[in-house]
Amino acid sequence: MRMLYMVAIIVTLAVSLTTDAQEINSLHLMPWPASVKTTPNSPPLLIQPSFTVGLHDSSDRHLRQAVEIFLSDLRRHTGSTPLDFSVSNGNDVSAAKLAVSSDHPTKEVQELGEDESYTLEVTASGAQLRGTTTLGVMRGLQTFLQLVEVTPQGFAVPTVVIQDKPRFPWRGLMIDAGRHFMPVEVIERNLDGMAAVKMNVFHWHLSENQGFRVESKRFPKLQEMGSDGLFYTQEQVREVIAYAHDRGIRVIPEFDMPGHSTTWFVGYPDLASAPGPYAIERKWGVFDPAMDPTRESTYKFLDQFIGEMAQLFPDQFFHIGGDEVNGKQWNANPKIQEFMRAHNLKSNADLQAYFNTRIQKIVAKHGKTMEGWDEILRPDLPKSIVIQSWRGQQSLADAARQGYRGLLSSGYYLDLMGTAASHYTVDPFADGAANLSDEEKQKILGGEACMWAEYVSPENMDSRIWPRAAAIAERLWSPENIKDVNSMYARMDYTGKWLDAYGLTHNTNYVSMLQRMTGNSDISGLRTLADVVEPVKGYAREQLAPSEPTSLTPLNRVIDAARPESATARQFNELVNNFLTGQIKPGMELQIRSTLNSWRDNETQLSAAAQSSSLVQEVAPLSHDLSMLGAAGLQALDYLDRGEKAPEAWKAQELSVAQSAIKPRAQLLLMVASPVQKLIQASAGEKPTDLPFPKNASD
Amino acid sequence: MRMLYMVAIIVTLAVSLTTDAQEINSLHLMPWPASVKTTPNSPPLLIQPSFTVGLHDSSDRHLRQAVEIFLSDLRRHTGSTPLDFSVSNGNDVSAAKLAVSSDHPTKEVQELGEDESYTLEVTASGAQLRGTTTLGVMRGLQTFLQLVEVTPQGFAVPTVVIQDKPRFPWRGLMIDAGRHFMPVEVIERNLDGMAAVKMNVFHWHLSENQGFRVESKRFPKLQEMGSDGLFYTQEQVREVIAYAHDRGIRVIPEFDMPGHSTTWFVGYPDLASAPGPYAIERKWGVFDPAMDPTRESTYKFLDQFIGEMAQLFPDQFFHIGGDEVNGKQWNANPKIQEFMRAHNLKSNADLQAYFNTRIQKIVAKHGKTMEGWDEILRPDLPKSIVIQSWRGQQSLADAARQGYRGLLSSGYYLDLMGTAASHYTVDPFADGAANLSDEEKQKILGGEACMWAEYVSPENMDSRIWPRAAAIAERLWSPENIKDVNSMYARMDYTGKWLDAYGLTHNTNYVSMLQRMTGNSDISGLRTLADVVEPVKGYAREQLAPSEPTSLTPLNRVIDAARPESATARQFNELVNNFLTGQIKPGMELQIRSTLNSWRDNETQLSAAAQSSSLVQEVAPLSHDLSMLGAAGLQALDYLDRGEKAPEAWKAQELSVAQSAIKPRAQLLLMVASPVQKLIQASAGEKPTDLPFPKNASD
Repeated sequence: MRMLYMVAIIVTLAVSLTTDAQEINSLHLMPWPASVKTTPNSPPLLIQPSFTVGLHDSSDRHLRQAVEIFLSDLRRHTGSTPLDFSVSNGNDVSAAKLAVSSDHPTKEVQELGEDESYTLEVTASGAQLRGTTTLGVMRGLQTFLQLVEVTPQGFAVPTVVIQDKPRFPWRGLMIDAGRHFMPVEVIERNLDGMAAVKMNVFHWHLSENQGFRVESKRFPKLQEMGSDGLFYTQEQVREVIAYAHDRGIRVIPEFDMPGHSTTWFVGYPDLASAPGPYAIERKWGVFDPAMDPTRESTYKFLDQFIGEMAQLFPDQFFHIGGDEVNGKQWNANPKIQEFMRAHNLKSNADLQAYFNTRIQKIVAKHGKTMEGWDEILRPDLPKSIVIQSWRGQQSLADAARQGYRGLLSSGYYLDLMGTAASHYTVDPFADGAANLSDEEKQKILGGEACMWAEYVSPENMDSRIWPRAAAIAERLWSPENIKDVNSMYARMDYTGKWLDAYGLTHNTNYVSMLQRMTGNSDISGLRTLADVVEPVKGYAREQLAPSEPTSLTPLNRVIDAARPESATARQFNELVNNFLTGQIKPGMELQIRSTLNSWRDNETQLSAAAQSSSLVQEVAPLSHDLSMLGAAGLQALDYLDRGEKAPEAWKAQELSVAQSAIKPRAQLLLMVASPVQKLIQASAGEKPTDLPFPKNASD
Repeated sequence: MRMLYMVAIIVTLAVSLTTDAQEINSLHLMPWPASVKTTPNSPPLLIQPSFTVGLHDSSDRHLRQAVEIFLSDLRRHTGSTPLDFSVSNGNDVSAAKLAVSSDHPTKEVQELGEDESYTLEVTASGAQLRGTTTLGVMRGLQTFLQLVEVTPQGFAVPTVVIQDKPRFPWRGLMIDAGRHFMPVEVIERNLDGMAAVKMNVFHWHLSENQGFRVESKRFPKLQEMGSDGLFYTQEQVREVIAYAHDRGIRVIPEFDMPGHSTTWFVGYPDLASAPGPYAIERKWGVFDPAMDPTRESTYKFLDQFIGEMAQLFPDQFFHIGGDEVNGKQWNANPKIQEFMRAHNLKSNADLQAYFNTRIQKIVAKHGKTMEGWDEILRPDLPKSIVIQSWRGQQSLADAARQGYRGLLSSGYYLDLMGTAASHYTVDPFADGAANLSDEEKQKILGGEACMWAEYVSPENMDSRIWPRAAAIAERLWSPENIKDVNSMYARMDYTGKWLDAYGLTHNTNYVSMLQRMTGNSDISGLRTLADVVEPVKGYAREQLAPSEPTSLTPLNRVIDAARPESATARQFNELVNNFLTGQIKPGMELQIRSTLNSWRDNETQLSAAAQSSSLVQEVAPLSHDLSMLGAAGLQALDYLDRGEKAPEAWKAQELSVAQSAIKPRAQLLLMVASPVQKLIQASAGEKPTDLPFPKNASD
């Protein structure tokens, strides 16, 4: 579900950034646990090379494996050697610094709703972790890891008692490997990131108009002709599933049907509703090709295909997509029209429902539960199916009232470049779902962050997922009342760096991509600019594209490196808000001035690079505006410092600079126009206001 | 060969940094080719998504593979998609933007001395690359890649004609995977780096007192008991060899014998010269255990072992180490003493020569040519063996005069933390080898950079190898007269960033390691300091260690992150030299002042981190000194600006600050004490002098 999602993205710069009374202390836990009790001034548990984990029951293979992964992660986070830290069993457990036990093993195939609760107690002399299941232990081990901090005595974990369990049983991340193929190592490092923030479902979008990404042995032309050679072998799929399972993550495949299926038809044109030949689609959008739901041969094919995939993917759930069929091929095919009349199918939606009913039976025959996007919800389908909603809580609530289970993805589309706060404030139980009964609420299983892949490559996808997905992970794990945005941002900023240890590239590739744009010369000028811009929001990128983007378009521009949400701009905005509302601290004005100075002077730094690089050249107009904004902000501060009201003419001129600076150029938004406008307004004795951000491209 | 290498490291900050008349233009080629002709102001060849490589002969599998790797690299360097760029064959070649041909295929098993020459011509309309062999094509493709630059028209390659061939046929990098195990992905990314700078021999040091790193199916207790589970399976070895071969790199295994062999004895104590049991060594140094050269069972074992490894490693050469036998076990064993008397072996060196003679016959029996460190050179060995010299050119020259082939590693030990210039200025044909005849010179095959691994982990090894190894690669590839140090540094600095594209971590892990030390808070203060320190040189790290280091010691301190050579310090020193010798340019003094300012003010930034982190705390004294140096330098500039001679008392006091700042703390050297001393001296009307750097730890 992708292109029809036209809900306007709310740019939430204006979200409350004031400090809440809710005091979340200096711990860097994310998601925040259900209950945390600290004992200030108690000595911490030191993590030394001799650190050992004691396993009460070493017969649980998954538990043992979880502890091995934990120790490996602990080594990364402390810079220790593979010879440091160890596991002890049986009699030695008493000497262990971290005793681990699990009341019940996890299932061989992880199931929806398995207990993930755990208790963790840490004192200076040792720690105990107890999970109701091995899955709970895995979550608790991640909490222990997040507690590790560098101290004057070396690495250590503070004294703490934590009782924790998730709010929702389904906390997912969807990665679209169809539009841009993502190699196994990219998937695996993202599984590490998911495990770190306690996400437990990896939804793998595996077929698209632009690529069919899994090896089928039964129908090899699917990958041979539909993937450009970019697909996962079945061995790789099993590797990824095992990797995920070791981290307490279920893997759900999605094979989109009957639409989004051009690449199936390249090798098997008879599946389609119009004659071939077909070629792999290179453009983005919604396309005409759709499976023919009226031919028995279609179901015979899908029966065999789903049978093969049901064997390959052990999870209970099987996602059939089911979104965005434009119906054009159906309308144009007389046989299909004839079939619809004969079967009293009054619309294409009816025809698709007929198709879904047939597919559901096939999926069920192979022992799986069907899942699909909103569109599949029709009264004739059994209550067992699961609806993934891109439409919103109302749609989930409607389904729940009819007895269907669902999960929320509306509001969690990472590719739309919204702020972490905009995702964080979306709650599966809010809005349309607010008035559900407790029993109906049980039907809402959780949610999934979605990473659609028109504009991500293996090089920059991590930076679109992380760290914002951590905010969604917290929404789905933590108690409903954990919602202070300031606290979330503080912990997310930390988590963003902390995830570097897993080889995620959201920070490292930012630098190397900028380096490439400047020809490996000094990036400081470009970086100063890139730090304060964001890609345009929602679907504005398509609308503002200089030429039609395709799957051959290099993703090597500033828009591809720029963070979805600029931390620099967010922090600067907060600084200015505090300054203008009288919450002035020593050094604050100096900090604002120094930032404005660097913007004003950045033009010189950047212009050399702009002259020698087309990729830098396209952001030169933004650089010019940033320089103007820096100068305007400094002048505004001068007026404020002198207690002098800025002249009207100057104010009008500088406000128009700010107005102009907010317009998208190079598909980028300059995120500091708004706080500078506030400085200008304040210096002229006006009430500071946020700039009205362009809601979409045409503004 | 490791611990006995006691040649003092010359800290070459003082090496000439003046601009040479030799004009190497703005191309970023490294190593510099034998002949480069550019045509200024000609339009470049644009690299567009439609870029194709034409293969005249697509039947050469290695050639085809080389082109595929090239295209993949080209995508990394331009941020293109896997669907961009392609290969065309036969009739389509004329339309290709880069036509590639090879006169001869490369050998199935790459051989020493295969022709690596190539010709590359680039014009705006297209490029031709012709290699005498496929190996030459590989080298030429790397040159083409290095020519790719970002321009106002996008990525492009300038008009150029290059004729190129290597000066030496053996240009190696040795990685010690014995002391710290290096996983396959670490090895492979370094092979990418080697290929990029045209190195062609990967010398894999696979057995040590601290670890036996290869799976033996014949003697499985070698890896089972001698590796802590950290070893390469034979399948992984084959993978690495194939990966290297695809990049034109030979792989030579080293199994060190009869010394450096404790881990062999853990599983097979009967091989040793003293009764067991043995355990894996955790400390660093030279140890007593040595194979028993007097028992036939030793040779029977080694015959079978070498036979197995000779099958696994296809290269012609087989390295037996042969260094650093302290002889204590031999002296203490009456049977060995008796054997020596009976065979008229007058010394332990004689006994080792007897051993080597026996081993050489075994190695030869299995079809291989024996290679070893200096010590193995004894007149009774055949002329076919190759000597790797850690002693220097004289030793190579002596061997060459006796008819032995050799290669130089003296002067190329990367672990000793010397400057790139110190390695760059070491020439295999200089010093002791200067007076060899042409025929004798033929015996000197080249050299090898050595990365010994007491103090490197998978996390920081790349930063000890790169970019300095590129300077050694240039010494071994480029004509003898390419030796301008300024040009080398300019190109090496570029190459250092350019290698990021291969996933080498010398830059990225610098940041993440500093982040870990500060607990993921702001690293700017720590970074400012880390940018201007270097690890102590030579073997001073051992001598200055706060406690005895072992293989369990975490390598997570500032010394482990700090670059072997500080580019910031080198550039600052050059700036001050130019300033004080009257080569003043606009902005230069401002740049010096701004740097000094940031050092002076850095103390505040760093002290917060120091209070909360033991790892930052240990560098606080250096931070204090950096702050003092910043202040002193600024004052000196004030005196100079005022044309006023600095007072004697002030000068004396500040010189003692500089003197004190150069002393190692936390096993680190503050590399900017010397240029600040020069400013102080100049301001007092004295001739500026370099600070005498402590040559070793006790100074």
